[in-house]
Amino acid sequence: MRYRVGILGATGAVGQKFVEVLHDHPWFDITALVASERSAGKRYRDAVNWIGTSIIPPSVEDMIVQSVDDIPDCDIVFSGLVADVATEVEPRMAEAGLAVISNAKSFRMHPLVPLLIPEVNPEHVQLVRCQTWCGPLVTNPNCSTVGLVCALRPLHDAFGVEAVHVTTMQALSGAGYPGVSSLDSLANVVPFISGEEDKLASEPLKLLGRLGEGGIEPARMAISAHCNRVPVLEGHLECISVKLRTRADANAVREAFETFVSPVKSLGLPTEPEHLLHVMDKDHFPQPRRHVMLERGMGVAIGRIRPCEVLDVKFVVLVHNTLRGAAGGAVLNAELLHSKGLLSHRALSKAP
Amino acid sequence: MRYRVGILGATGAVGQKFVEVLHDHPWFDITALVASERSAGKRYRDAVNWIGTSIIPPSVEDMIVQSVDDIPDCDIVFSGLVADVATEVEPRMAEAGLAVISNAKSFRMHPLVPLLIPEVNPEHVQLVRCQTWCGPLVTNPNCSTVGLVCALRPLHDAFGVEAVHVTTMQALSGAGYPGVSSLDSLANVVPFISGEEDKLASEPLKLLGRLGEGGIEPARMAISAHCNRVPVLEGHLECISVKLRTRADANAVREAFETFVSPVKSLGLPTEPEHLLHVMDKDHFPQPRRHVMLERGMGVAIGRIRPCEVLDVKFVVLVHNTLRGAAGGAVLNAELLHSKGLLSHRALSKAP
Amino acid sequence: MRYRVGILGATGAVGQKFVEVLHDHPWFDITALVASERSAGKRYRDAVNWIGTSIIPPSVEDMIVQSVDDIPDCDIVFSGLVADVATEVEPRMAEAGLAVISNAKSFRMHPLVPLLIPEVNPEHVQLVRCQTWCGPLVTNPNCSTVGLVCALRPLHDAFGVEAVHVTTMQALSGAGYPGVSSLDSLANVVPFISGEEDKLASEPLKLLGRLGEGGIEPARMAISAHCNRVPVLEGHLECISVKLRTRADANAVREAFETFVSPVKSLGLPTEPEHLLHVMDKDHFPQPRRHVMLERGMGVAIGRIRPCEVLDVKFVVLVHNTLRGAAGGAVLNAELLHSKGLLSHRALSKAP
Amino acid sequence: MRYRVGILGATGAVGQKFVEVLHDHPWFDITALVASERSAGKRYRDAVNWIGTSIIPPSVEDMIVQSVDDIPDCDIVFSGLVADVATEVEPRMAEAGLAVISNAKSFRMHPLVPLLIPEVNPEHVQLVRCQTWCGPLVTNPNCSTVGLVCALRPLHDAFGVEAVHVTTMQALSGAGYPGVSSLDSLANVVPFISGEEDKLASEPLKLLGRLGEGGIEPARMAISAHCNRVPVLEGHLECISVKLRTRADANAVREAFETFVSPVKSLGLPTEPEHLLHVMDKDHFPQPRRHVMLERGMGVAIGRIRPCEVLDVKFVVLVHNTLRGAAGGAVLNAELLHSKGLLSHRALSKAP
Repeated sequence: MRYRVGILGATGAVGQKFVEVLHDHPWFDITALVASERSAGKRYRDAVNWIGTSIIPPSVEDMIVQSVDDIPDCDIVFSGLVADVATEVEPRMAEAGLAVISNAKSFRMHPLVPLLIPEVNPEHVQLVRCQTWCGPLVTNPNCSTVGLVCALRPLHDAFGVEAVHVTTMQALSGAGYPGVSSLDSLANVVPFISGEEDKLASEPLKLLGRLGEGGIEPARMAISAHCNRVPVLEGHLECISVKLRTRADANAVREAFETFVSPVKSLGLPTEPEHLLHVMDKDHFPQPRRHVMLERGMGVAIGRIRPCEVLDVKFVVLVHNTLRGAAGGAVLNAELLHSKGLLSHRALSKAP
Repeated sequence: MRYRVGILGATGAVGQKFVEVLHDHPWFDITALVASERSAGKRYRDAVNWIGTSIIPPSVEDMIVQSVDDIPDCDIVFSGLVADVATEVEPRMAEAGLAVISNAKSFRMHPLVPLLIPEVNPEHVQLVRCQTWCGPLVTNPNCSTVGLVCALRPLHDAFGVEAVHVTTMQALSGAGYPGVSSLDSLANVVPFISGEEDKLASEPLKLLGRLGEGGIEPARMAISAHCNRVPVLEGHLECISVKLRTRADANAVREAFETFVSPVKSLGLPTEPEHLLHVMDKDHFPQPRRHVMLERGMGVAIGRIRPCEVLDVKFVVLVHNTLRGAAGGAVLNAELLHSKGLLSHRALSKAP
Repeated sequence: MRYRVGILGATGAVGQKFVEVLHDHPWFDITALVASERSAGKRYRDAVNWIGTSIIPPSVEDMIVQSVDDIPDCDIVFSGLVADVATEVEPRMAEAGLAVISNAKSFRMHPLVPLLIPEVNPEHVQLVRCQTWCGPLVTNPNCSTVGLVCALRPLHDAFGVEAVHVTTMQALSGAGYPGVSSLDSLANVVPFISGEEDKLASEPLKLLGRLGEGGIEPARMAISAHCNRVPVLEGHLECISVKLRTRADANAVREAFETFVSPVKSLGLPTEPEHLLHVMDKDHFPQPRRHVMLERGMGVAIGRIRPCEVLDVKFVVLVHNTLRGAAGGAVLNAELLHSKGLLSHRALSKAP
Repeated sequence: MRYRVGILGATGAVGQKFVEVLHDHPWFDITALVASERSAGKRYRDAVNWIGTSIIPPSVEDMIVQSVDDIPDCDIVFSGLVADVATEVEPRMAEAGLAVISNAKSFRMHPLVPLLIPEVNPEHVQLVRCQTWCGPLVTNPNCSTVGLVCALRPLHDAFGVEAVHVTTMQALSGAGYPGVSSLDSLANVVPFISGEEDKLASEPLKLLGRLGEGGIEPARMAISAHCNRVPVLEGHLECISVKLRTRADANAVREAFETFVSPVKSLGLPTEPEHLLHVMDKDHFPQPRRHVMLERGMGVAIGRIRPCEVLDVKFVVLVHNTLRGAAGGAVLNAELLHSKGLLSHRALSKAP
């Protein structure tokens, strides 16, 4: 039996990405598109300013948008809400018994909410058993955190990561729509993204932390981030230097990447990439425009692995910020919940 | 009496920038435009594919291009030659008694050739007294080195710099013309620039080194560089983290920048900016497109000074790569040579 | 005696351009910066989000912004207001005795308001004598109209223009700030600009019309416009085909451009370019990025003059949309008013 | 039985697109990758600078590149050769009995060579019966011609087209690789593309012409083209105005587009789009970045259908220049040849 899913913030940039990712999903059926009161009651195609490069999937374009003030009649909601709305809405939805799979930052650092990347810390999903809402609530990390942590996971396992220095060059789509003005971005770089450096310094510690009796014990490492907005459409590029607890050279680091096996590989999650990490050999790779769709946007490309003169080893990471780093990652989280028996079907309401 | 100057590689991207900077210079008169045999004999306007946003200065557009195989009849030559040509031509010109002011990399690390930024290491110019060519030969650093070292100078003086981590986002003009293909750069980042990271790791050590009996003793510090090409026209942006020998916080670093006084300020060099370093307060500044022309392209903008979680302090630097970082810097070097009495007028040849 | 000038909408994109153009003007002193109630009372530098590539002129950065609800104490106001605000504010200012030099569209087609380009239709300025406001009110055309009409003027004089087909490729700055989203413009073209095609079809008829007893008799010609937004920062490029009443070939058209002499040349207006029209020979010229600053942004570049297979002759025009096409054009209009004795000094109010 | 196909110029930009389009084609197997002597003997992945956004298909990456001087052992060759090479190579290949499906311009206007768009002029394919080479040689039009002619076909059928005015905004990929310098294209428009306007003025006459006893009688209409290069990656946008022999308004034109049925629809050609023409309603559509992949890059989008003040009706067309306008169009031509019984299998040579 398939799950009925709703998309919260369905008219926004992340919400549209959820529509793209979910409209032909093998387990999930979009049964509710939820947005602000202003859009409620309209047909989706009239309410949305569709910014994607594909067309609006015909199966949803005539659906009537529902108000975020109501509880949609479904089993799962995927949340692309902005933080201040998510803070109020998501617990209300969970309380009503829906599974809430959120891309918002509101509950990422909440001690009882898993901050989840299935290939990185699948065991954290068990945290939901401690939650007191009727439905589970899980979150995925900030888009630039995802790329960083996917690369750090095998290094932390093999050598222990002591310090990380990361400079990001982030795509415009990460700022939503209309987001960055063209006059600020064309032929320019903005060396600042509000709140981003803090997320990069804190979220990886929870993701790489250990789930124990008292919750998640964060990993210990120093992370210094510098975040820039560059005129790229999709794909965050990150220049990363790491200091390792056990000394390792560039070859050992490379081997750790190449031999990494996803801990959830055997679960057969439909959205999981065949290989999470793709090591590239050419000096001028990876590039956002060329490689962002690797593994349908769910892979992480790594290149230029070499010694760092200040820390130990440095390399470049590319992650698709709105697929792997947002909507795709969230859907993968929902798939993990199902595979662990943590999703349930709510009784069907009587439709009006 | 004014100096007669020639421009080597006058049809290339750097050569054109020399024409722009020199055509109305108060001390220098362009009397020779020198290029490869292919261009020799043509009028400059016919030989050049002018890529600037201004027009070709009328005073030079009808000059006949001379061959680089000959010695031009002038006192000084500014070299925008590519490295492999410069390696042969520049010593030959110096041997013939011309002062050679080079932007090429060929002799930057030569023990008897000053690698010079007047505000940073003016005393190094004295190295030319040890040279055996008839005319002096001085060089300016790689464009991205210039921005880095201008920022490091006051920090090294005040606190001692122990380690530097720098990630650059470099403009397209740094690759010359035609340079980077539009298909590689539009809406993309290339995380590699051939040879650039090595220059950033080595040139600052000479620039911040001490001139002693046995030549220049390089500074000791570890420098790790990651260089990226971004779709920006002019202006290299650099995210820099430093580890200092004497502990200092962000405020102390900021004060060191703000109180920096150029050691050659009293010389009245026409191309020197009023202030070398400009500290900017807004989080999203400096930006290449907005601030690259600060001090007519000769200033260096610094922003986002804050603590670094891994080293000590981090900040952002912006430098105009083809003015401060190339043609403008070279002209300033020539001005310093003059002010130190190291330039001379050659006897006028009998023109053909 | 100099004029005291105010800028209406001083914090907006056009208002900022007025500040840039006027802050060192030989006749005009900025004495008032006027904006909405929200900005009133703040220092200009705190109220404005300065988007220019130069810095805020020090002479104005600490001025206190005044409310558009009040009448500023000055002789002239330059209006960069949006249309719906201008409709109410501009007549009120004129009624109060200020000369109103407007870039807004509100009164462009008003029968008693000159729509003015000094080199094109200077005699239209006399229309202000028929106005009933205390101060004169003049307007300049839409930015893309300016480029078109400057090219049509000599052709209409020499041959009579019967029909015009124009396709524009317009810069992002024409949409103001934040204006076009980077996600709509990077590596993209938007084949539509709201209201623009109508302005291009109607404004030229008034500009090229004749001032007679009963006002301005519009020129008769058919104009078909197609307007596109392209990822360019400054400079509208227009592909124009014309059908002429008196048959003329490309050479005759070229000669008409090259021999055009501004009818106001003798007035010595400070902002007028030395030559309005610049004919370029190279096939791939003019280009927005290379040639937009011709004559400090006040010239109009014309290239690719050749036969048209459908109409008679076709060519390309480039105009700086925020200088020649907006703030610079408006300042030139004010200079024309002065030279015609149509500006006066108001008595100084007692400042509060 | 499947056909063995070779790709001429396989390392170039068009050749790579052929590889992308053909590697999983239901009828064709790539058995030869052919390039210049310089690449011959290398593995494809070593010889090619792959510029696509997908990876090199694994099935071809290890194939050994063959020299264009030899005759490859296959049934069909797809030619992405540059014109001067194609002029010599293509007849030699046809003479050897291969079917030559060419994207080069060399033989497009040859009286015995079909210039072919299956949905536009499928009957022209019969011209190959008059050819004297052993194998047939067919060509597809210039990329910008394709978009124009697909739109003109239904209008010419319904109303007769008398005159066409077209202004193009063409993508960078049309210039090949490295093609346009980033310094010429970033934040710029180049109002010229060498040879392009002539092709747009001549090729449509052959395409819309009639195949009679004496060959193809060209259509009679005047076409005026202005071609611009804009900073877009894929997709040519064309602003088109038409004058019709039978008067028709915008609604009638729209209906002609919407009711157009491909004359080869019944043949079941695998690469043919479900609908060739897609009429879009939103004013700001179509856009290159958003709609270029319509029908997997084989559809043509039309928008903004409205009256033209100078001719009769105007509208905007978008075509994918390297798929519909090059490699995809060529493959569709080969499919048409097969369906008409004009392709044959050559005897297998004994491989060396």
